[in-house]
Amino acid sequence: MAKSSNSKGVVQRARKIQLLLMDVDGVLTRGQVILLSQADGTALEIKEFDAHDGAGLTVARLMGLRTGIITGRESAALARRAHEMDVEFLYQKRAEKIPAYEEIVRLSGVAEAAIAYVGDDLPDLPVMARVGLAVAVGDAAPEVKRAAHYITSRAGGDRALREVVEVILKSQGKWKEAVKRARA
Amino acid sequence: MAKSSNSKGVVQRARKIQLLLMDVDGVLTRGQVILLSQADGTALEIKEFDAHDGAGLTVARLMGLRTGIITGRESAALARRAHEMDVEFLYQKRAEKIPAYEEIVRLSGVAEAAIAYVGDDLPDLPVMARVGLAVAVGDAAPEVKRAAHYITSRAGGDRALREVVEVILKSQGKWKEAVKRARA
Amino acid sequence: MAKSSNSKGVVQRARKIQLLLMDVDGVLTRGQVILLSQADGTALEIKEFDAHDGAGLTVARLMGLRTGIITGRESAALARRAHEMDVEFLYQKRAEKIPAYEEIVRLSGVAEAAIAYVGDDLPDLPVMARVGLAVAVGDAAPEVKRAAHYITSRAGGDRALREVVEVILKSQGKWKEAVKRARA
Amino acid sequence: MAKSSNSKGVVQRARKIQLLLMDVDGVLTRGQVILLSQADGTALEIKEFDAHDGAGLTVARLMGLRTGIITGRESAALARRAHEMDVEFLYQKRAEKIPAYEEIVRLSGVAEAAIAYVGDDLPDLPVMARVGLAVAVGDAAPEVKRAAHYITSRAGGDRALREVVEVILKSQGKWKEAVKRARA
Repeated sequence: MAKSSNSKGVVQRARKIQLLLMDVDGVLTRGQVILLSQADGTALEIKEFDAHDGAGLTVARLMGLRTGIITGRESAALARRAHEMDVEFLYQKRAEKIPAYEEIVRLSGVAEAAIAYVGDDLPDLPVMARVGLAVAVGDAAPEVKRAAHYITSRAGGDRALREVVEVILKSQGKWKEAVKRARA
Repeated sequence: MAKSSNSKGVVQRARKIQLLLMDVDGVLTRGQVILLSQADGTALEIKEFDAHDGAGLTVARLMGLRTGIITGRESAALARRAHEMDVEFLYQKRAEKIPAYEEIVRLSGVAEAAIAYVGDDLPDLPVMARVGLAVAVGDAAPEVKRAAHYITSRAGGDRALREVVEVILKSQGKWKEAVKRARA
Repeated sequence: MAKSSNSKGVVQRARKIQLLLMDVDGVLTRGQVILLSQADGTALEIKEFDAHDGAGLTVARLMGLRTGIITGRESAALARRAHEMDVEFLYQKRAEKIPAYEEIVRLSGVAEAAIAYVGDDLPDLPVMARVGLAVAVGDAAPEVKRAAHYITSRAGGDRALREVVEVILKSQGKWKEAVKRARA
Repeated sequence: MAKSSNSKGVVQRARKIQLLLMDVDGVLTRGQVILLSQADGTALEIKEFDAHDGAGLTVARLMGLRTGIITGRESAALARRAHEMDVEFLYQKRAEKIPAYEEIVRLSGVAEAAIAYVGDDLPDLPVMARVGLAVAVGDAAPEVKRAAHYITSRAGGDRALREVVEVILKSQGKWKEAVKRARA
């Protein structure tokens, strides 16, 4: 299975992508689950995203790539960040990812061969087995790396998504235009 | 004393484990003590856990391994995270760990040879001297590493617990089934 | 184009600088976008600055260098930090940076050849093309590094600004005096 | 000037220490200035300390070493942490450190040759020039390293203080006893 960004297989898969889906913890973040204790005994969730990932996903949308998130956790922090990045599909609190994935496939009308998914751990495996371009972040679990068409050189939360956006837009000949628009 | 995961001694010890106990700061976290100042002069505690550790401990429970925590600090953040990971025994604010440990031994009914404990610093030493499998995280204090049967390759808060779960479940021939269940 | 701090070109450019402008995320921070979930579904922004950057910018002001910030985001955290560092110009929530930049040029009365700007990602490119000394932090996007007169050896949020302050003050023969004042 | 922990000079200096003073940002923390935006436009300070530093300072107190903090910032987070570590002298919001230092010298009655101070940046230099054992953390500014009798192998916020405690207690033949007490 091709694992390098230069490989023909990955470029051919990336060229077809219209919809980019992703997990959150360990993919859009470094995988830290951060909780702030409250005086009443509850706890609030903090999430650390990456600014370069955000700029990449924002410009991807400008260039016509659709985006979506499927995660097992739920937080207002993610809801705000997804809104900032203009993410089209946001499914939180989904311990099992396949039902959410299938709903997105149906609602978007995009063929599975034109969908990419970026994951880092075991619950991501079922979706990765379905999509046209399965991506593992650089520090994914070994089982996830083995299931991927492409492994990013960057770790989750450290520009892995930016790298995926560049791989897709470059394969489609759109990256130079994206850089221009991001400058504007 | 055997220190490698491949060593016979560790596998024999791991095979017997029914109860996995652990410290928190420096074991389930990177050892940062994070405090948020409040306007009234008090401070709230923030804790950063690792998502891969959480997925590992959750699947360990699914596979029948019992789990518990003994820590010197106390926070609502830990209480929530322990609940999310379905931890059976949670003892907070225990400067001395042996009394909490002995209570867990009594309540669980598990023989000490079937208990594992993961620690990183000096207060963990008395419990480590008692259990069947004493584990030090990769960045534990030198005194703790010397007292361990097994030293993880990962640092505390960076998947050390995931590694311990894998060592135990693999020694018991249960890891492949665990991966399947985690996918579901 | 000269990229080393020792190169004549950079020293000549740095010698003229009277106004030091900078982006925030990825420049004064490591590029993490950190959000704290609130019970009402909103989220509050956390920002992590660097103490050495702060000491450098504070001493730069004492030595007569003027300073300013242009960022696409907005937060009370940045407002407080900018105040602590005695920053003269603060423009937040500016998706496009050129209009804010041109307003600063007009208000400050400083020639563009006497302005430095420190950036890390694509939206910084238009301003970098205008100033006398364009600086990229050590972990900037490749497109930004290519557009820079100087690339810091330190990453954003990890003393990159301190390094820029030192390069400027040393080129102007003012660093030794700055160290004395910082001691006082 | 001796810079190694093994050097005779450092051991002789460490042997005399009765009072261990330190800066906070970059010494007890990694140097991050972390601010949480509030809805009313103010910001609350978050501080990240290290659990191994805390255990070291706590055991140092048990062994009779006195401790104190002098910092330019002020936060409830630090006040709570200093209390947890049983720190005797706490001086916050001191842009100039010498007046606070001299007050501690007077109140403690300890000779300056029996005082150690741990710093990381320019404002620490005046105190470092006075004490019997001047320590720079491993990632201190070059000017601070040059002024130190001892440079820790660990960075600030990453067990540098633990290392200093061990150097002092070992030089005084008290470390083995400290390990025993920390276990209890």
